[in-house]
Amino acid sequence: MHILLVNPNSTASMTSQVLESAIRVAYPTTRVTAVNPLETPVSIEGGADEAMAVPGMLSEIRKGELQGVNAYVIACFDDPGLHAAREIARGPVIGICQAAVQVAMTISRRFTVITTLPRSIPIIEDLVTAYGADHHCRNVRAINLPVLGLDEDPVEAERLLVCEIEKAKLEDRAEAIVLGCAGMSLLCERLSTATGTPVIDGVTAAVKLAEALVGAGYMTSKVNGYDFPRIKSSPLASDIEHLSNLA
Amino acid sequence: MHILLVNPNSTASMTSQVLESAIRVAYPTTRVTAVNPLETPVSIEGGADEAMAVPGMLSEIRKGELQGVNAYVIACFDDPGLHAAREIARGPVIGICQAAVQVAMTISRRFTVITTLPRSIPIIEDLVTAYGADHHCRNVRAINLPVLGLDEDPVEAERLLVCEIEKAKLEDRAEAIVLGCAGMSLLCERLSTATGTPVIDGVTAAVKLAEALVGAGYMTSKVNGYDFPRIKSSPLASDIEHLSNLA
Amino acid sequence: MHILLVNPNSTASMTSQVLESAIRVAYPTTRVTAVNPLETPVSIEGGADEAMAVPGMLSEIRKGELQGVNAYVIACFDDPGLHAAREIARGPVIGICQAAVQVAMTISRRFTVITTLPRSIPIIEDLVTAYGADHHCRNVRAINLPVLGLDEDPVEAERLLVCEIEKAKLEDRAEAIVLGCAGMSLLCERLSTATGTPVIDGVTAAVKLAEALVGAGYMTSKVNGYDFPRIKSSPLASDIEHLSNLA
Amino acid sequence: MHILLVNPNSTASMTSQVLESAIRVAYPTTRVTAVNPLETPVSIEGGADEAMAVPGMLSEIRKGELQGVNAYVIACFDDPGLHAAREIARGPVIGICQAAVQVAMTISRRFTVITTLPRSIPIIEDLVTAYGADHHCRNVRAINLPVLGLDEDPVEAERLLVCEIEKAKLEDRAEAIVLGCAGMSLLCERLSTATGTPVIDGVTAAVKLAEALVGAGYMTSKVNGYDFPRIKSSPLASDIEHLSNLA
Amino acid sequence: MHILLVNPNSTASMTSQVLESAIRVAYPTTRVTAVNPLETPVSIEGGADEAMAVPGMLSEIRKGELQGVNAYVIACFDDPGLHAAREIARGPVIGICQAAVQVAMTISRRFTVITTLPRSIPIIEDLVTAYGADHHCRNVRAINLPVLGLDEDPVEAERLLVCEIEKAKLEDRAEAIVLGCAGMSLLCERLSTATGTPVIDGVTAAVKLAEALVGAGYMTSKVNGYDFPRIKSSPLASDIEHLSNLA
Amino acid sequence: MHILLVNPNSTASMTSQVLESAIRVAYPTTRVTAVNPLETPVSIEGGADEAMAVPGMLSEIRKGELQGVNAYVIACFDDPGLHAAREIARGPVIGICQAAVQVAMTISRRFTVITTLPRSIPIIEDLVTAYGADHHCRNVRAINLPVLGLDEDPVEAERLLVCEIEKAKLEDRAEAIVLGCAGMSLLCERLSTATGTPVIDGVTAAVKLAEALVGAGYMTSKVNGYDFPRIKSSPLASDIEHLSNLA
Repeated sequence: MHILLVNPNSTASMTSQVLESAIRVAYPTTRVTAVNPLETPVSIEGGADEAMAVPGMLSEIRKGELQGVNAYVIACFDDPGLHAAREIARGPVIGICQAAVQVAMTISRRFTVITTLPRSIPIIEDLVTAYGADHHCRNVRAINLPVLGLDEDPVEAERLLVCEIEKAKLEDRAEAIVLGCAGMSLLCERLSTATGTPVIDGVTAAVKLAEALVGAGYMTSKVNGYDFPRIKSSPLASDIEHLSNLA
Repeated sequence: MHILLVNPNSTASMTSQVLESAIRVAYPTTRVTAVNPLETPVSIEGGADEAMAVPGMLSEIRKGELQGVNAYVIACFDDPGLHAAREIARGPVIGICQAAVQVAMTISRRFTVITTLPRSIPIIEDLVTAYGADHHCRNVRAINLPVLGLDEDPVEAERLLVCEIEKAKLEDRAEAIVLGCAGMSLLCERLSTATGTPVIDGVTAAVKLAEALVGAGYMTSKVNGYDFPRIKSSPLASDIEHLSNLA
Repeated sequence: MHILLVNPNSTASMTSQVLESAIRVAYPTTRVTAVNPLETPVSIEGGADEAMAVPGMLSEIRKGELQGVNAYVIACFDDPGLHAAREIARGPVIGICQAAVQVAMTISRRFTVITTLPRSIPIIEDLVTAYGADHHCRNVRAINLPVLGLDEDPVEAERLLVCEIEKAKLEDRAEAIVLGCAGMSLLCERLSTATGTPVIDGVTAAVKLAEALVGAGYMTSKVNGYDFPRIKSSPLASDIEHLSNLA
Repeated sequence: MHILLVNPNSTASMTSQVLESAIRVAYPTTRVTAVNPLETPVSIEGGADEAMAVPGMLSEIRKGELQGVNAYVIACFDDPGLHAAREIARGPVIGICQAAVQVAMTISRRFTVITTLPRSIPIIEDLVTAYGADHHCRNVRAINLPVLGLDEDPVEAERLLVCEIEKAKLEDRAEAIVLGCAGMSLLCERLSTATGTPVIDGVTAAVKLAEALVGAGYMTSKVNGYDFPRIKSSPLASDIEHLSNLA
Repeated sequence: MHILLVNPNSTASMTSQVLESAIRVAYPTTRVTAVNPLETPVSIEGGADEAMAVPGMLSEIRKGELQGVNAYVIACFDDPGLHAAREIARGPVIGICQAAVQVAMTISRRFTVITTLPRSIPIIEDLVTAYGADHHCRNVRAINLPVLGLDEDPVEAERLLVCEIEKAKLEDRAEAIVLGCAGMSLLCERLSTATGTPVIDGVTAAVKLAEALVGAGYMTSKVNGYDFPRIKSSPLASDIEHLSNLA
Repeated sequence: MHILLVNPNSTASMTSQVLESAIRVAYPTTRVTAVNPLETPVSIEGGADEAMAVPGMLSEIRKGELQGVNAYVIACFDDPGLHAAREIARGPVIGICQAAVQVAMTISRRFTVITTLPRSIPIIEDLVTAYGADHHCRNVRAINLPVLGLDEDPVEAERLLVCEIEKAKLEDRAEAIVLGCAGMSLLCERLSTATGTPVIDGVTAAVKLAEALVGAGYMTSKVNGYDFPRIKSSPLASDIEHLSNLA
């Protein structure tokens, strides 16, 4: 079984961290590889970063299809391009946010997500709603540290996360914590130990769910919604592309 | 890794079918066992059957805890006693309805559930709502065959299911089908082949998710909602138990 | 008219308190009786307690059916086994949580529930959602006192409840308070007087709704969802009940 | 105990029918009176009719307050002016739609509403949503007969209703039927007998709930949302009332 | 194009303020007029005030229909009688709450509403829900100043509003503010400047949306829900209007 | 005022149609221009097409910012990249789906959307949910014609649309119709006339809303969710981009 992790941003150190997290939990017989596009933003912080990263990410998935990849993990907590990727892939495509939310709904009754920057809070709230976890998710919090700040000062990142987890337990009555950024992946176990609370890292969750789905023989449905994109013949090349009513 | 499947009803033939489905997809290193209580209804058709089955099911889980079981699968599509079981177990407890719904939300945009008797339709609709799949689930349908009828006349059961799946594709625009009864488990592959549509069996889904959660190291959160039941000293035995205002 | 209150736990002092609350408000022509099973937990604190209490509770309802009981009140705020009980009974079955929520939605625009232990908060939240009161319920709070603690130290219980009601008015803008435990029943009037706020006790609410439904001639619908449990012939006694893939 | 039924329309024959329905089920010790304003529409069919009826209805409630009325029933299925009435009254105010919905949620898992004209369907759907019964209400249907048509040709009305109830059972899997117009009140028992299905009339339901709430001592909360209207001193009489930017 | 603003309360100074706000933003070719009924409450604070104001407001709209008005704006944040008005008018009818909410959902991901008295909070929350903005609206706050207090002490009103906007930014993470009272209209620009946050006044929003809808040629649909009220012949004048079961 | 319509696909004939629709309704003083990227799919049918179109679309918006564009309309009914575009633009960005839904909620109580291919149905359903119109939208239908088919055979397209609108009125009780594809824009008026039902074209709606928002002075909030993308310094160019656990 071959699982391909696609980190949609272009920061290779995050790609290798994500791979490290995946390898820790994958079955030895699972082939896990990780890739990132080269021309995408160095981190995904908001919708514009997402949009600029998705075509490169889809390109990696198209390559994966030629290589016989069995399942894909999108290694960014905004799950950018998740629906698009499922149209392209034959096997399952797992978003780390959706995976983490599904695990959190299984091992706890109420959870809180902790992410990096406040600007991601409404994005993650909307994902949580789309994944049906509105009643299970108590809160989405941010430690106000940019994504790459996790890598630059991991000690401070850990301190901020421990502090925010304690607040989530006290103020939100959170029973489990979901880490809202792929870059927090390697801190997961330490945070769980430090706070005595289950802490869920989406990369770990997604890799194991990918193995599970492939192992059960599930493929992405090609009936209607996730069908392959239609191949369209191009119309005549247009020589006008900017039109106006007021010359 | 030891996964225990608990069939809450007392029909051993269903227990062995469920085990067969599980073994087909489990990793060879996973120990899978299956058990059913002896004093519970022969099938679970409605809330009263559920209620009568749960204490026996919990008793099997308590035994499992002593044996070091790592995760449990409740092999009945009503997910009876799911929250109660999670209070008792240290490891994850997977309901086959919740597992199937999570898979269906991952490999399709819209799905339909097909169950046995119409009386189970509102029960399953309420579960789908609780699991956050209201917008993904197009319909819950019934073939109007009792649970044990699946076993007594599997040819007729398969014919009815194929017919209902075709209706679900046409009338509901279903992109995937969830089988709404553990007893349909062994038909899953044939139905998928016959209809050209992904068909999801909850037992298969749950066993693989159980492996995934144990493999990732997740345990049921013991913070608040799923904490172990409190041990309570009994008050003085009451010698009156029936009281009335009108002698 | 005969209304039977079933206290699902085995603490007879709570049964008699509940009966006292009921008698205070019942019409003199209503026969009110109360019963508790003997083999159930001494208090219901969480899903496992609920599950262990329900079969005994259903057994009392089956006895009630033979005695011509007209309506039942389940005297525990988790409404354990409510759907199961409705399958068994011909007359209406009222859960004290659902009753209190319906009253609160009628006499106020926004209310808060106050229960005993924090572990019951997500259970009650899920009930409030199921009863359609998500937009009316501001909050579910806990005074962090076990159920039997209400009986052991009623002065402290009252003090904690008054304090929490004041917080609910201030922080939640609660317009009415729902008491989230049958054991708080007798405190209801004192709490309302002390805080100048309508305080709703589920036992009182449920008894009056039971009288209302019986008085109007309503019976539980036996069409589909709440139909009587099917009577099933037992398959051959199974001589295997524990199966495994790894001998 | 004095319960006042206010029929918001000005058709006295409907007022007397509503009173007849109420008297059938009220306790003999309950004083039930019924009134309708004189200057309101002859029937309530849509939002404009509602709006024109409410001030007259509130005026009757204000009179009721002077007479010591204990609870009010608004005898129109659109529940017109329900929130306004609760601000004015000290005792509970019951809308027949809300009452019927609460009963339907208690004695069945899924119900269908049947009203007069199609234009009322979205109004009733919005009420059902506001009362939290979205998941319990399968459908809102109309027999396409004006409100006063019920009175003019009761035989045809009954035939149309029986036919629509049968459709609701077959197509909606409805387990109970709610009659969506006060004018259908007297047909309730015959419809239930003819179709073998619980049929709920809002007038009956509301009168019994009103008795229940008064009997339990509940009053409308005067904290915040349903507080009495503030008494405001009038500003200086304005001598301009039509203003424009373009002379 | 003729747009008529109807202020449902009888305070002419508010009518002229509302007109001033409208004229500031209307196209010079748009004819904007404003009117208030004479016999309605001096301010709308709660459901009873709304109910008493609506018939007078509808009467102004009926006059507007005779004068060829193209669109109406209901200049009260509770959107009183909005559905009724749409039944009467041929052109679009815009409620200032709905207009402001639609703008807020377009220019921000999350917003907070700030109104006058706390009693209006649940009313506005219910409107926000009805307009589909539950997930976008973080909070509804009140400055605890009566409607006419805005006019009597505009300096204090502005101070209270600035203070509450700052709290909304900090505690709610609000990205935009909706002013929850027509009487706050003229403060809008100053508040936005003072707090560095988009502040949305419903009157402004509604006038521009009215122009937009008329400009695009949209009329209120007369299919079903917003069809004109049916004209009904009156039944025989009833000589009894108060009926009772207990002479 | 300068409004820029961005057609995210590369079919210039659609761009000019969209501009034609816009010019018909824009104020003469509004400068309306239209553009499409050159390297994007020829039509947007599904999530993968969307993803491939968005970076080119954002690039046009970035150019627009340099030219002082006041508001943008995204002229594709899937509203691709709407949140991303709002991060980049200072002025409002209007999606034609959101605009059409807002109009439909204002001029009718219940509407149906009609799109091209069935694969777009779940995408549009999810948008309708996100825009808060779940209770107002009766159905999303498809005429099963590819986007470019609208242009190739407009007679057949019109016939299919009329037929589907009639079904929507009859089966969905739709009170208004929303056209679910920018390419249907020019048919809008003819469809409305042919069916006697308000038909809403998103391009028309969006252009008028854009004028309204600019006219009122609204800008996209730069507080949190729609703040400009952060400018990030690139880390050292990574020389590894494909990593694996199994050499």
